[in-house]
Amino acid sequence: MTVKQLSLPELVEACGDLGIRNVGLWREPVQAYGLEATAKLVRDAGLTVTTLCRGGFLTALGPKERDAALADNRRAVEEAAVLGTDTLVLVSGGLPTGSRDLHGARERIADALGELGPYAESHGVRLAIEPLHPMFASDRCVVSTLAQALDLAERFPAQQVGVTVDTYHIWWDDTAPAQIARAGAGGRIHTFQLADWTTPLPEGVLNGRGQIGDGAIDMREWRGYVEAAGYTGPIEVELFNDGLWSRDGREVLQETARRFLTHAM
Amino acid sequence: MTVKQLSLPELVEACGDLGIRNVGLWREPVQAYGLEATAKLVRDAGLTVTTLCRGGFLTALGPKERDAALADNRRAVEEAAVLGTDTLVLVSGGLPTGSRDLHGARERIADALGELGPYAESHGVRLAIEPLHPMFASDRCVVSTLAQALDLAERFPAQQVGVTVDTYHIWWDDTAPAQIARAGAGGRIHTFQLADWTTPLPEGVLNGRGQIGDGAIDMREWRGYVEAAGYTGPIEVELFNDGLWSRDGREVLQETARRFLTHAM
Repeated sequence: MTVKQLSLPELVEACGDLGIRNVGLWREPVQAYGLEATAKLVRDAGLTVTTLCRGGFLTALGPKERDAALADNRRAVEEAAVLGTDTLVLVSGGLPTGSRDLHGARERIADALGELGPYAESHGVRLAIEPLHPMFASDRCVVSTLAQALDLAERFPAQQVGVTVDTYHIWWDDTAPAQIARAGAGGRIHTFQLADWTTPLPEGVLNGRGQIGDGAIDMREWRGYVEAAGYTGPIEVELFNDGLWSRDGREVLQETARRFLTHAM
Repeated sequence: MTVKQLSLPELVEACGDLGIRNVGLWREPVQAYGLEATAKLVRDAGLTVTTLCRGGFLTALGPKERDAALADNRRAVEEAAVLGTDTLVLVSGGLPTGSRDLHGARERIADALGELGPYAESHGVRLAIEPLHPMFASDRCVVSTLAQALDLAERFPAQQVGVTVDTYHIWWDDTAPAQIARAGAGGRIHTFQLADWTTPLPEGVLNGRGQIGDGAIDMREWRGYVEAAGYTGPIEVELFNDGLWSRDGREVLQETARRFLTHAM
């Protein structure tokens, strides 16, 4: 998503040129290019797919919408399996229109995970609940903290449900380091993502994630927490940023790799 | 601030017409109209000033900036005393330019409170730390949760330092109800403010606070938590909203009073 201006073949070629061996993919470009074709493309290039983004949006009130969401999440699990990744990232969903019941929405997510968890496990895929920054609580994700995400995940086996640790969403939270330790102790850190916090936020606040090193977050500090918790998996850089998207994708990928080495290693 | 388009005399007159007996004031319009003149205006109208907004911005690294901030906060305390309010709201300040040290910034706030608390108490004024929504953590307020605010406040006597409970900033936080109980048990709920959460957020996210009833927050629920914690003081409605500011101020004040009765009582 950081370089969504690149087609999948361009992305794979650019990763090869830069020595990047792992890549996180989003469902939309994969579906557009073709699931089997994408799987072959990355496999032939020797690339490993770290995660598939994203399932989720599990807070619907109506049974028809709920069934549709569950069906879509089962498809996402199947897509992850075909791509060879063991992790499907979940953005849980916001409040239904007119609802003010955060607790009820979170419980509906738990209900859905009870159905999706075993289905994912049977495909060798783990669900990774991503707490999103509290500024997304009403319209995108009612799971706002790592503690909330773990409260949900721990109702299920770790090989079914864990969490996504993303610096952008949790950097402000002084309880997050302890929650990372909790997640690590339970084997529930299913992926670790980096993005920096920059201001002013753009209208709608979705596409303002900062390039590594441009903002307020100490990447090494958070990498330290995650590694101290036993995480040894890949580290993803996921930037939603209109400025980066308007530039040459290969240049942005190279810059991002350089920033990663400078600020996170 | 909800109707900052009204002059202070217009505000006082409109409050009288609507039967509103309590008003929270901001320093800038008070200073512009004159401190003594404002005190006389509200006193003659029989209005009580609930709080003065705002002191704070206590995170500076340099000794010169720190001294200037402390001096400004002492002036704010004096202004509160002249206006006859016992509560000065504090917005603690963001990260200094280039800093990524949230913990250090929070400790500098504690240092400053150690100097300001006794000064405030000697003027009959209590400082009310306002946790701001985590989306303001880098540029406005490194205190993002009620728990963090109470961790700071509890280092000092309650008659010196407490907290501001504002629905807009804490509504997403499932630990906030327990923190409200903690604050109430310690006599530290120094004011209670309402604003609703509406999306999409505007660029810069400062002036998007929703009119009561327009958004995702259950006002009665939060009023219930605060009252169960023993709070019996006034309830303020504080909206930063470009749309409301562009309308007739008396009409907005009337609408706000009506919305308060419909959604919070």
